[in-house]
Amino acid sequence: MSADLVELVTSLARRSRTAALVLATAPTVAKDAALDKLAALIDASHFELLGANQQDLLSPEAQALTQAGRDRLELNASRLRHLAESVRAVIALPDPVGDVLEDFTRPNGLRIRKLRVPIGVIGIIYESRPNVTIDCAALCLKSGNACILRGGKECFHTNTALAALISQALAATGLPVDAVQLVPTTDRTALTTLLKLNTLIHCLIPRGGESLIRFVAENSTIPVIKHYKGVCFVYVDAAADLAMAETITLNAKVQRPSACNAAEQLLVHRSVAENFLPSVSRRLRANNVELRCDAASAAILARHGLAHTSATAADYTAEFLDYIIAVRVVDSLVEAIATINRDSSNHSDAIVTADEPAARRFLAEIDSATVYWNASTRFSDGFEFGFGAEIGISTDRLHARGPMGLRELCSHKFVIEGTGQIRA
Amino acid sequence: MSADLVELVTSLARRSRTAALVLATAPTVAKDAALDKLAALIDASHFELLGANQQDLLSPEAQALTQAGRDRLELNASRLRHLAESVRAVIALPDPVGDVLEDFTRPNGLRIRKLRVPIGVIGIIYESRPNVTIDCAALCLKSGNACILRGGKECFHTNTALAALISQALAATGLPVDAVQLVPTTDRTALTTLLKLNTLIHCLIPRGGESLIRFVAENSTIPVIKHYKGVCFVYVDAAADLAMAETITLNAKVQRPSACNAAEQLLVHRSVAENFLPSVSRRLRANNVELRCDAASAAILARHGLAHTSATAADYTAEFLDYIIAVRVVDSLVEAIATINRDSSNHSDAIVTADEPAARRFLAEIDSATVYWNASTRFSDGFEFGFGAEIGISTDRLHARGPMGLRELCSHKFVIEGTGQIRA
Repeated sequence: MSADLVELVTSLARRSRTAALVLATAPTVAKDAALDKLAALIDASHFELLGANQQDLLSPEAQALTQAGRDRLELNASRLRHLAESVRAVIALPDPVGDVLEDFTRPNGLRIRKLRVPIGVIGIIYESRPNVTIDCAALCLKSGNACILRGGKECFHTNTALAALISQALAATGLPVDAVQLVPTTDRTALTTLLKLNTLIHCLIPRGGESLIRFVAENSTIPVIKHYKGVCFVYVDAAADLAMAETITLNAKVQRPSACNAAEQLLVHRSVAENFLPSVSRRLRANNVELRCDAASAAILARHGLAHTSATAADYTAEFLDYIIAVRVVDSLVEAIATINRDSSNHSDAIVTADEPAARRFLAEIDSATVYWNASTRFSDGFEFGFGAEIGISTDRLHARGPMGLRELCSHKFVIEGTGQIRA
Repeated sequence: MSADLVELVTSLARRSRTAALVLATAPTVAKDAALDKLAALIDASHFELLGANQQDLLSPEAQALTQAGRDRLELNASRLRHLAESVRAVIALPDPVGDVLEDFTRPNGLRIRKLRVPIGVIGIIYESRPNVTIDCAALCLKSGNACILRGGKECFHTNTALAALISQALAATGLPVDAVQLVPTTDRTALTTLLKLNTLIHCLIPRGGESLIRFVAENSTIPVIKHYKGVCFVYVDAAADLAMAETITLNAKVQRPSACNAAEQLLVHRSVAENFLPSVSRRLRANNVELRCDAASAAILARHGLAHTSATAADYTAEFLDYIIAVRVVDSLVEAIATINRDSSNHSDAIVTADEPAARRFLAEIDSATVYWNASTRFSDGFEFGFGAEIGISTDRLHARGPMGLRELCSHKFVIEGTGQIRA
């Protein structure tokens, strides 16, 4: 049985590789036609999709989920309309394939061009959000990549129904049906097999909780693009406009606490702590945010009779994803930078200051994917960056770092034209 | 003992990470001064370096090497002069750090710049060539990366002596000495520990034989930039200028057969095989090249009484790195493309033809890092591309593909300047 599964997944990946070679040179108009057809099929298939989703929601696995987990899994008419719209939005994006990244001629007359091309076969490993199935398929298709989708067990019927629509759309528009394939089983052996197929799959993108991402990164022999977590800092400098600092801190923390770009950590320069902390703590508390404080910040809040708790060491590197923020007082910009470079997850960190040299130093020395001066960390997002789409955010250093759009789903190749040149 | 080694390597990597944060913002002039000092130290230390190299050459490990292996390990005055020159050549290269890759302003007024920055800490895992120690250290230093060098057992004394000079050069010019560190043991535990330090080391570059590279790629949890092998093709099309095809085939095969960009495979269109094969085989044979032929090419050579052997299936995907070439006759451009996409290592493949549409199709559809029209595959090289240096050639699709220079040793970060923007 296990050997059968290995063969099933390997043969699926082999078909992906073949489809990828065709898709790599498919014209934009063909890819857009398939996306348009997919959007229409989603619109026309509410009944079937909601039925499949009901099957999932009634399964023992779904019954065991938290309320938030069930909410992530659930589809309804409005969500389906939104799903079709997100596919149509991808049609509107420019096709990244074929972009000329460099074009130069060597003294020997060789013309060398570096062209953007698809990566090839991309594996998406994800959990229970059915929108990932459609979003990733659409972005991979537009960027000329074949993709293999391996979703969660709770969402299997919904994903199967969505994948059937994708196949229909590909077939109807003459693109290889194997360009998007759902792994037709949620057996663990299928996943562990997939992770080792490095001659057929060129890149894995895990999407979900930290444990899933860590499992993929640690067990795969295929290059992985990932981010583990977002432990994002806001640093309020000695020269900060305190009203701006308060607005930014509040936005970074409470506008969407479950997002990876939400602030989890607040650093305040000692010289402004007495003025800043009482006011910002009142507004955070009014938004139900718990402040977990170091001794210095706790003392200030205590003097003003303001509620807070004492931070543990673990709080200073925690990704709360909740209405909680850790607070520390620092003595200098240098201490703030060292603290962030030690304790952050190198995702998104901000300084609030009117002191340009301080800001420049912070922007240069903070070793994170995205660094902000006088703005909320919540802007780390493919749509906010104007990429028109987001396949994820990378905290890796290779290939992609920060928000990833269509171009980050591409590689490049060198195309060289000569007139008989040989090497001396 | 093993726990001690784990601690030793982990603490070494921790110091690298600290040094990397300093080096990331070191000015070009400081990095160039260290390189200049290093070149001078190499020039002034021939006696010590040759002594250390002698120790290695006399070791039982070196005695067990092949003649070629001992040659790779051996230093002499001329090679040392060349080593110092290669360091001076890196000084002349432009510093990639700080390059503005993108600069745009969003409708909300946020200015977003994508800047080139060092990757951070790079681990170089290599075998017995001592020049790798200096070349990699120089390129990592210039690109602002800290590096950890883990060389082969046969070369340990030479590497230790070279690393001492690097430390001296760093100290003399005020850069962190930990920016370049040699793992001070060749114990296997040190290597396996290194491969798992993904929170401290951001990238691994293995350099050496395929088994070393495969070991690193399959056992590391750190992203790896690599190439396994170069199984490069020359395809002689129906419309080829046969004199040009002969010159290119000869150059690609015999100019340096041990290089990864040397041709291992020759495909010839059936319509020109009768004219092309006898002549090219005479010249290849005159250069001691063995032709391993399929039935069709063997029949042609046999009719002309020309020597050849019969290819096995394994020959068609082999990286010979020797005076051997596998030869096949194909019926069409389409068959040539399919054959190459199936059997090549996606490194460097060439078409020789005067038919532009055929060439365009080949260049578009061949899924390799570097594709050539009417030129030798031997040009796949950082120096030949004008990068001024080469840290390796990647056949991966992520981050770097093809020859890698200083820019491929860099990542990027997004630097965002606002005036108090928050997300709605």
